[in-house]
Amino acid sequence: MSRPLPKIVRATVTPILIGDPPLLNVLGVHQPYTPRAIVELETDAGATGIGETYGDSEYLEVANALAAALPGRPLTALNGLHDLAYQSAALTTDTGKEFDPAGLRGRRTNEKLVRSVVSAFEVASLDALGRTLDLPVHALLGGKIRDRVEYSGYLFYRWAEHPVPDAPTDDWGDALDPEGVVRQARRFADDYGFRSFKLKGGVFDPDQEIEAIKALAKAFPDHPLRLDPNGGWSVETSVRVAGELHGLLEYMEDPTTGIDGMAEVHRRTGALMATNMCVTTFAEIPEAFAKRAVQVVLSDHHYWGGLTATRELAAICRTHGVSLSMHSNTHLGISLAAMTHVASVVPNLEYACDSHRPWQTEDVITESHRFVDGALTVGDEPGLGVELDRDALAALHERWVRLGVRDRDDVAAMVKADPTWTQPALPRW
Amino acid sequence: MSRPLPKIVRATVTPILIGDPPLLNVLGVHQPYTPRAIVELETDAGATGIGETYGDSEYLEVANALAAALPGRPLTALNGLHDLAYQSAALTTDTGKEFDPAGLRGRRTNEKLVRSVVSAFEVASLDALGRTLDLPVHALLGGKIRDRVEYSGYLFYRWAEHPVPDAPTDDWGDALDPEGVVRQARRFADDYGFRSFKLKGGVFDPDQEIEAIKALAKAFPDHPLRLDPNGGWSVETSVRVAGELHGLLEYMEDPTTGIDGMAEVHRRTGALMATNMCVTTFAEIPEAFAKRAVQVVLSDHHYWGGLTATRELAAICRTHGVSLSMHSNTHLGISLAAMTHVASVVPNLEYACDSHRPWQTEDVITESHRFVDGALTVGDEPGLGVELDRDALAALHERWVRLGVRDRDDVAAMVKADPTWTQPALPRW
Repeated sequence: MSRPLPKIVRATVTPILIGDPPLLNVLGVHQPYTPRAIVELETDAGATGIGETYGDSEYLEVANALAAALPGRPLTALNGLHDLAYQSAALTTDTGKEFDPAGLRGRRTNEKLVRSVVSAFEVASLDALGRTLDLPVHALLGGKIRDRVEYSGYLFYRWAEHPVPDAPTDDWGDALDPEGVVRQARRFADDYGFRSFKLKGGVFDPDQEIEAIKALAKAFPDHPLRLDPNGGWSVETSVRVAGELHGLLEYMEDPTTGIDGMAEVHRRTGALMATNMCVTTFAEIPEAFAKRAVQVVLSDHHYWGGLTATRELAAICRTHGVSLSMHSNTHLGISLAAMTHVASVVPNLEYACDSHRPWQTEDVITESHRFVDGALTVGDEPGLGVELDRDALAALHERWVRLGVRDRDDVAAMVKADPTWTQPALPRW
Repeated sequence: MSRPLPKIVRATVTPILIGDPPLLNVLGVHQPYTPRAIVELETDAGATGIGETYGDSEYLEVANALAAALPGRPLTALNGLHDLAYQSAALTTDTGKEFDPAGLRGRRTNEKLVRSVVSAFEVASLDALGRTLDLPVHALLGGKIRDRVEYSGYLFYRWAEHPVPDAPTDDWGDALDPEGVVRQARRFADDYGFRSFKLKGGVFDPDQEIEAIKALAKAFPDHPLRLDPNGGWSVETSVRVAGELHGLLEYMEDPTTGIDGMAEVHRRTGALMATNMCVTTFAEIPEAFAKRAVQVVLSDHHYWGGLTATRELAAICRTHGVSLSMHSNTHLGISLAAMTHVASVVPNLEYACDSHRPWQTEDVITESHRFVDGALTVGDEPGLGVELDRDALAALHERWVRLGVRDRDDVAAMVKADPTWTQPALPRW
């Protein structure tokens, strides 16, 4: 005889705003506050689970629709979430809108939107299931094969302060030249022990960014380095940068936009091309792999639709001899826990994962992760192993209500400092 | 605080012999008895789980080595089983021995051997975990997306009896011409309700098998049909058969051996090529898909290394627009339960699964599956939802000890009837 499967009785989506430093990229600068959505599930046995994803308006709309459809469904019915999201939000699969540089994620499609939303519900389901069963999430994914997950220190060009009143502040100061970047890296190494660094590029003339990488290589000769201009360069510029930095980068991340451009840069330079822009859904894989445009896929469980989907992506990459690393966007401790669990079960994760986390100091969990020697330990606590801080969640939600910021917009934030700024056409250089 | 993960305290491998009718194929005929290996796991909480795989000597050797290495390991440590099997059996990855028609599975490699063994332990682990947690195996795989799994009726040319004394018998009679095949299909349809049929070919001259398919199509105009000569035909013969059977087959299964041959048959005829011979491991996928040699992969959780690996294969096929169906070899009810669970969670299973099951009437579970309308219901009982019959297991093991049959050998069985028979070179026609 079978007991009924555990069922979801309540699903909640709470939009919040989290403080963000003035980090620069090809589009502009991070706003003082960035929206995220926190998902909570409750089961008929009283277990709870939490997840996290983008909080921008279009994500929230789908998340709310999916949440409304969940009560009464089995907690374990993860394979059905994708179709349920389409149905409940009344979306259709589409061929995609135009390339959208503001999303830093290639073409915008409903599929990408749905997968990013589903990821938070899948993670929350696994968290609740793990708590119900007294098993860590990694055990629900076939068990960790490593006890530590390495992260890369994520360096940004940045201002000391946001150019607007009442914005969050910190004590990092600015980083606008090679010396500033090396200074930032030094503190990252001292505070967190990161053993590799990624520099978000596409901000200054490529020659300045080449100098920054050379300065990093000189200061940290044993630290693998990455440079990511978010498609800010032409093929010719990318080829030139690859030549200048030959031997200094473990891979180049989205130097230029599009599969054909990436393939050409790889063909002409031999440099490994990593991406979280030209391959961010399964449909983009066949052409990109056939054209050898990508040697490292930067997985992201939000983009790909959850932890199981990330495993499937890993299997595809393994099969085709393409390497795997992990992308990050602005996120909190719930997603960092999820990233760490899935990273612990994937055999072919050959590079340290990215995380913005040191920059976002606010959190909605009671005990934020702390990088030690650049890594996080994979715990065996039930579920994700983190506890929701309801007071923090309420305060960050109250900020969302009060400030009215509904979408991340790096271009608009830059306009505050430079009224002549407009969304740059890519490539910029 | 975390409780310790459930641990394996005992792992047992029991070789058995099960009765098999005189089913004909390109190599010869099924022996009266076929070896299988039954895996049992026991956890420190007293839960048990069962799995099943090939019982031939080389599989048994690896299974016994892996079983000896398991006590003390977490029950949930499925991702580590593959490497542990290599280590414990002291195997190295290799590039493969020569193409081995006797295996009906292309080149022989340690990787194929290891994956087939691991599959039984992974299934047994999921069964034990499901029983521990009171969850069906499908729920541990993200939940079923269908309540019924359709199977195809597996027609064989066959003799009425084995040409040796003391062999198992049945009341099916022979099937050696189109009338016999249609008669067999009629009983399959009447007894089990199968709504599609597969004929194992490669036994007679292709013209005779063409006539059998035409007779089936006439007798069962609404039943999709398949023909599988196990690589018995040349490219030219395959092209000719495809022409003669145009519109009558949903796909052609391994008409010829090798990726290039399959690609050519598809290119020249447009017929869909299905395989469980030229693509049976992940390493074979890139070339086969790039050359469009395969339009339908016949998954098999034994071949591919378990239920999670089958999901990963499904994701790869989905990504590349290649269809999925399911292969079967001689098996018992444990594997049929596992096949049904994984088939219930894979969205892109577009065709009815194969199963030899109606032919093997012996079983090691207390209540054998019964096809209704050609399908099995996906249950919600804990684990696989089947119970080991210890008396049956003991009896079939005693037969293994007594009869001394250690390997399946369809060629040797044929020699008993025809002393001039030798292993046929492929293609035969």
